[in-house]
Amino acid sequence: MSDDDQELGITESKSHNTGEWYAEVVQKAGLADYGPEGMSGFIVTRPRAYALWERLQGFLDAKFKDTGVQNAYFPMFIPESYLEREKDIVEGFDPEVAWVTEAGNNELEERLAVRPTSESIITPYISQWVRSHRDLPLRVNQWCSVVRWEATETKPFFRTKEFLWQEGHTAHATSEDAWDETMTRLDQYESAYEDLLAIPVLKGQKPDHDTFPGADTTTTVEALMPDGKSVQGATSHHLGRSFAEAFDITFSDEEENDRTAHTTSWGLSWRALGALIMTHSDEQGLVVPPTVAPEQVVVVPIWQEDTKEEVLAYAEGVADDLGDAGVRVELDDRDERNPGFKFNEHELNGVPLRIEIGPHEVDDDELTLVHRPDGESVVEDREGVAETVRDHFDEIYAKLYAAAEETLDGEVREADDRAEILGTLGQHGGYVKTAWCGDEDCEEPIKEPMAAEIVMVPFEDEDPLVGDDHDETCAICGDDAERTAYFAKSY
Amino acid sequence: MSDDDQELGITESKSHNTGEWYAEVVQKAGLADYGPEGMSGFIVTRPRAYALWERLQGFLDAKFKDTGVQNAYFPMFIPESYLEREKDIVEGFDPEVAWVTEAGNNELEERLAVRPTSESIITPYISQWVRSHRDLPLRVNQWCSVVRWEATETKPFFRTKEFLWQEGHTAHATSEDAWDETMTRLDQYESAYEDLLAIPVLKGQKPDHDTFPGADTTTTVEALMPDGKSVQGATSHHLGRSFAEAFDITFSDEEENDRTAHTTSWGLSWRALGALIMTHSDEQGLVVPPTVAPEQVVVVPIWQEDTKEEVLAYAEGVADDLGDAGVRVELDDRDERNPGFKFNEHELNGVPLRIEIGPHEVDDDELTLVHRPDGESVVEDREGVAETVRDHFDEIYAKLYAAAEETLDGEVREADDRAEILGTLGQHGGYVKTAWCGDEDCEEPIKEPMAAEIVMVPFEDEDPLVGDDHDETCAICGDDAERTAYFAKSY
Repeated sequence: MSDDDQELGITESKSHNTGEWYAEVVQKAGLADYGPEGMSGFIVTRPRAYALWERLQGFLDAKFKDTGVQNAYFPMFIPESYLEREKDIVEGFDPEVAWVTEAGNNELEERLAVRPTSESIITPYISQWVRSHRDLPLRVNQWCSVVRWEATETKPFFRTKEFLWQEGHTAHATSEDAWDETMTRLDQYESAYEDLLAIPVLKGQKPDHDTFPGADTTTTVEALMPDGKSVQGATSHHLGRSFAEAFDITFSDEEENDRTAHTTSWGLSWRALGALIMTHSDEQGLVVPPTVAPEQVVVVPIWQEDTKEEVLAYAEGVADDLGDAGVRVELDDRDERNPGFKFNEHELNGVPLRIEIGPHEVDDDELTLVHRPDGESVVEDREGVAETVRDHFDEIYAKLYAAAEETLDGEVREADDRAEILGTLGQHGGYVKTAWCGDEDCEEPIKEPMAAEIVMVPFEDEDPLVGDDHDETCAICGDDAERTAYFAKSY
Repeated sequence: MSDDDQELGITESKSHNTGEWYAEVVQKAGLADYGPEGMSGFIVTRPRAYALWERLQGFLDAKFKDTGVQNAYFPMFIPESYLEREKDIVEGFDPEVAWVTEAGNNELEERLAVRPTSESIITPYISQWVRSHRDLPLRVNQWCSVVRWEATETKPFFRTKEFLWQEGHTAHATSEDAWDETMTRLDQYESAYEDLLAIPVLKGQKPDHDTFPGADTTTTVEALMPDGKSVQGATSHHLGRSFAEAFDITFSDEEENDRTAHTTSWGLSWRALGALIMTHSDEQGLVVPPTVAPEQVVVVPIWQEDTKEEVLAYAEGVADDLGDAGVRVELDDRDERNPGFKFNEHELNGVPLRIEIGPHEVDDDELTLVHRPDGESVVEDREGVAETVRDHFDEIYAKLYAAAEETLDGEVREADDRAEILGTLGQHGGYVKTAWCGDEDCEEPIKEPMAAEIVMVPFEDEDPLVGDDHDETCAICGDDAERTAYFAKSY
């Protein structure tokens, strides 16, 4: 969009109208547009958002490859009969599937599903590739888009009918190996949120009644959004033998006995972008940490006619030094815009660090650095600018993370009975931690009036309510408590 | 596949049964599998081939970004009414479109095309984003898969119903700018072939009657395959104003006048992988240059029981040194396989350089290096192994390129009349260069009996037959010649 048409700044309030504020940030910061008429639920991912996705992709892809994963690519269509071979899967996804029924001017004999997830086409190939225990573990991952025809309102990156993600699929000789794999990926997802996106997460598993279709265990990282709702940030599933049995993944072990493999799958979608944008941004627009910012620094020279030459030359030198050091830097030397407009525009677009250079800075061999999240302004020496800037990146990252962590810490509350759970969720949102018997029926009295559910249960070895050495009872039914449950509204 | 089941070596002859030989290389080197039943025309891209694709992607993506292109992502579906807005596009692609007609358990009101190419969904957004001449040039690219339901026989990477590619879409203020863009991308494609894949190409344009639907000019890089057929290696289209008019891309120029933009699109698909595999591979299996090889070096220790410890330690040191220097290296220290088996397996899988280490090498502080394409064996000092290996990579690249170039040079022949064109094509394949009046009708007498066509016409400024200062006549009709035409059979 041309500058001339651009209204800078966000008009909606982040705290009062989080949804509208988010939609406005996404549009005005040039992150995404809505799909064409007739295609509600689809979005166009614009370059600024796609660049964020590429950095997240690069971060995770390197971790995957360092830990034995290879990328591959499978067909985007899945024959209906394949989808049906794992009955839990088709029950899980059938209502959301988009079907190709005509192609090349002919009606197809069998409908083809546009992949909602690829277990049912990848597993049969893994079955062909695995013969011996020496072929295990086998790990493939693909970066692709999938389609799930949900009828809910579109929310860019959070709820869209097509979304970008990665899906990893692995096969292992033992259940323990599959469990290690499941946790390795979950830890990598946690690291992506905490070390790249500056978002602290809660790590645990879904209650047994809410696992991925066909899975033994679904593990999750959950992130808290500013409106008090939880986002499922990524999931990693121990699939047990259900897919291996449905698609016949067998191998001969060291004693030449035939055995059935254990499989896992794990995925992170562009929902992580939604969480990133929503967590840090403000009423000036997009805020992202320097780790993922497409432009990390903007250098804004501030001149009068008589100082223009020297200020511009100095600013160019600074930008060159930064560029040479591998910093993603832009020099904004546009003539037709005043500094105030430029400041607003780069704030809207989420550039984490601004360097202001006027005649004063030139005279004193200095720079004025301004942090995006809070406007903190610091004067630094010109010398060693690249190192100085990196220190400020670390500071900015730490500020963003600390703010998100403080929010999360304050938004985990405890409650002892149904009324307190409902009251706390209603008043504050966030997570409500409570003792739970483990029965799905005890989620209903919260879910029904409040649309909140158990989004996370700590892992067994981290949950004091596992085992008999406590007297806690379920907050809903009063039976013996078996697990700690985190209730929250969720995206 | 487990080693136990693997038959190493290719049984078909590259020169006699190129198609069968190619299919065998693709399967045995673990590059691709065929799609499931009911989905003929689809392939599964296995990790070895996908890693080749990732290197090609990285090479081109960096070039694109260095020259002003930003990545984005658009929906995979296109409403039928959008496809129809550019009449050439709908005529060009309609017979090959796969249609989504049902989704979320409902019949859709409007059919959605699975994108065969994205001009008709990207251009309307470019139209929204462009207001002023300051918004131009606007360049977006996406890496994705597209679907074209062709009824021909499947040939992995060459002919598949779904294929991976990138498609770039740009808008410009003037036709000249759009032409510069078209050529910038064509040059980058040429560089990908010549500097990364070790494949020389012919660069030119398609005859006017064979341009991309809606395009003014389609430019192409053509590569010669070992069976004498030409592969269209990538295309870059000057689209003129046809899409800009159909989708209303207008901008106000410096004088505030409304003007219509000029657009381009350009794409390279995984067909480039097909060309790569087919050009260099042989009857031992896959051959690829070190630039793209997933594993560049394999270190094979050769020991007896009494030398095992020292040989393995030495080999590990070599592999570590190479790994530390950023070389993609594997140490093959498997106990259960003998060196001969390992040699064959790594040759099948296309590792460009093998380092053999036995007690002799250990004693003399040396290494034996064996080149994949020709088995050339060289003894080198252990010291400075990383630099030595890089020199050998350059040598291997040069050998592969020289061989492909020699083939290409020998396969461009001239002919002066229809009989000679047909005879030359029938006897040798390759390219037949001839004078041509420019009329589509004069392609028919070659196309009809021989299934060969004009795959390339040199650019105007490189074609001596453009203009009046020659006496050449069309080899088919005898009228004045206007262009030089390259006839070939093609994929």
